[in-house]
Amino acid sequence: MLNLHIPEYKRIELIAKSSPEYISFAQGAVRVGGTPPEIKADVSVILKSDQADYYEPAAGIPMLRKKLAAELSEKFSINLNWEQIIITHGAIGGITTICLALLNPGDEVLLPSPTYPSYANVIRFCRAEPKFIYAFHEDDKGWHFSFDVLKRSVTPKTRVMIISNPSNPCGFCLGKQQLDQLMAWCEERGIFLIVDEVYDHFIYEGEYHSVTPRVLTHRYVLRTGSFSKDYAMSGWRVGFIVAPEHLVPLLKTIQDGALCCASVVGQFAAYSALEQKHLVQRQVDLVRLGREIASEMLKPLIEAGVLTYTKPQAGIFMFLKTNEPNSEDLVNRILEEAKVALVPGKDFGLGGEAYIRLCFAREEAKIVEGIKRIQKFMIQG
Amino acid sequence: MLNLHIPEYKRIELIAKSSPEYISFAQGAVRVGGTPPEIKADVSVILKSDQADYYEPAAGIPMLRKKLAAELSEKFSINLNWEQIIITHGAIGGITTICLALLNPGDEVLLPSPTYPSYANVIRFCRAEPKFIYAFHEDDKGWHFSFDVLKRSVTPKTRVMIISNPSNPCGFCLGKQQLDQLMAWCEERGIFLIVDEVYDHFIYEGEYHSVTPRVLTHRYVLRTGSFSKDYAMSGWRVGFIVAPEHLVPLLKTIQDGALCCASVVGQFAAYSALEQKHLVQRQVDLVRLGREIASEMLKPLIEAGVLTYTKPQAGIFMFLKTNEPNSEDLVNRILEEAKVALVPGKDFGLGGEAYIRLCFAREEAKIVEGIKRIQKFMIQG
Repeated sequence: MLNLHIPEYKRIELIAKSSPEYISFAQGAVRVGGTPPEIKADVSVILKSDQADYYEPAAGIPMLRKKLAAELSEKFSINLNWEQIIITHGAIGGITTICLALLNPGDEVLLPSPTYPSYANVIRFCRAEPKFIYAFHEDDKGWHFSFDVLKRSVTPKTRVMIISNPSNPCGFCLGKQQLDQLMAWCEERGIFLIVDEVYDHFIYEGEYHSVTPRVLTHRYVLRTGSFSKDYAMSGWRVGFIVAPEHLVPLLKTIQDGALCCASVVGQFAAYSALEQKHLVQRQVDLVRLGREIASEMLKPLIEAGVLTYTKPQAGIFMFLKTNEPNSEDLVNRILEEAKVALVPGKDFGLGGEAYIRLCFAREEAKIVEGIKRIQKFMIQG
Repeated sequence: MLNLHIPEYKRIELIAKSSPEYISFAQGAVRVGGTPPEIKADVSVILKSDQADYYEPAAGIPMLRKKLAAELSEKFSINLNWEQIIITHGAIGGITTICLALLNPGDEVLLPSPTYPSYANVIRFCRAEPKFIYAFHEDDKGWHFSFDVLKRSVTPKTRVMIISNPSNPCGFCLGKQQLDQLMAWCEERGIFLIVDEVYDHFIYEGEYHSVTPRVLTHRYVLRTGSFSKDYAMSGWRVGFIVAPEHLVPLLKTIQDGALCCASVVGQFAAYSALEQKHLVQRQVDLVRLGREIASEMLKPLIEAGVLTYTKPQAGIFMFLKTNEPNSEDLVNRILEEAKVALVPGKDFGLGGEAYIRLCFAREEAKIVEGIKRIQKFMIQG
């Protein structure tokens, strides 16, 4: 029988949830005050009717798909057909639907690493092979993406590549040229490129380039997105796929079989969110504040020589390099003794072993107290 | 690439949703006034806090799993460990999780038919083979289940069998002896038996036997269930699996990868539902009324010799036998001309071709108007 293990970040988050004495910087949820009350007020109105009570089409409520298509069309100056949008059960539900559609048993999936831990299990339950390749490197100038390692890792069995951009956990965004090169390279080889853009609004420095416009011109590019981060809606489980037209019927049919449809009340919440786009900025501002506070408070640890890091350009994580070849023991001790939940870098595949991931999308008081505890543990130890 | 088609009942439901001129008896949702307002009132209270905003454990909110375990334990006089319950994205999400766990490429899945159309696509996207076997037969005494046909259909590749009990579409319940025989036969051969019990509360005549207690004693039996029918909550997407202990870790890990977790607001709605069990009876009474009205109104069609049927013992469907060898054309004409949505029997696999499925879990006025139109079309033509 299939042999799967739950990712470390989930295991650790469960421990952190077990008692209020823990502070968790583990799971990548935006926890800066909950889903905006404006959205929940709209949902309460919807609940007065039966609009959210019954099954809806597998690809999502047309009203939501149309609104999202209009928003993306305006943002990227494109003309996106709303039928190319499929509303999913979070971005990971979208990745699952895509993988079930595209992967045959024994196919290989390239995972440029360090990368998001949950992709690998999706690939494995599709009976395909995740192939971690050490493609993101850090030096004193920051993070870099190495294209050469991809070229060396491709085989005739390579069918899909999944990349998160902005990168979870590296906080790095691929440049326009890098994305162009990647897309052309994939298209030439018939490799489907899934770009998971769930942190696309959390950009603090430099430029960000979405592949959304490229889905209209490239047959082998798919984009996933989510309402979970933008509107602190992770519990509502609503995400989306932007897919090339030729894949839409199959993706819809798979989702119809697997889910019937995404949560309908969640879809109404997502619609409300899109009607109030300014709410994203509020979340982003709060998370940016978390990034600043965390940076400030990490200084003594940097000065003490126990950690180094590149300040993240985007996303909601700091990926902190320790002096350990493998941070696992350190993370476990911080969890047990300091009662702070972090994630060991080995969870993110090749290249992450020495690192610790810290999610700074938390309320100010939690960041202050949590990093104080880490300081105390690592410096005064 | 995988070649899948959306089931007919979904295609027809989409047409019926496209204009208010249609009356739909197609999709199996309980539409007798919407999700009870008592449940939605509780949800509105939950929305005032952040309890439903964030990710929860893959197997579901412990509070809900514990409450459901307590309820099932009391109902069946058993001692069900709450960790054997996994909260899923509807019952079909549970079937998906189980199939992803158990099926290897090329495995065969026995589907005693006529059966629920959505199982086959789940099996196909797991790269396994659905094997429809004509096991439910109707004669003038009603529906019967033939065990012999199973024995003839098993091969070394048979890994799983899925059966809905009460049967969708036949409205028939398996007897205690039949279930015992089935479980013993599966266990002997190492075949996993999934019993989908989403209509377990909709019993109008005779006895009903759930396999829930057997999950504690049999390694090869799993039970799925749902809140969708009992509380008219199909849009909320909450169901569950009761699984033998040895399968729980794998099922949890797969669901973690595929979904992260089921909709959290949906899980709170389900918890509220379990606190108000009397609400099920209200739904069942309304659906039973629909069954009586439909039975009464079908009489002229029976007398005219254009339809015959066995009054369903359970469930929310009438499975009406026409005089056509294949009802598809008739169903399409009723849809186009009478604007009433039904489902052609061929959607349900072997043995259903001559039939039409009618869902009577509708409001009285819809049943009256819809069957009047069918009468007019089929008799006065």
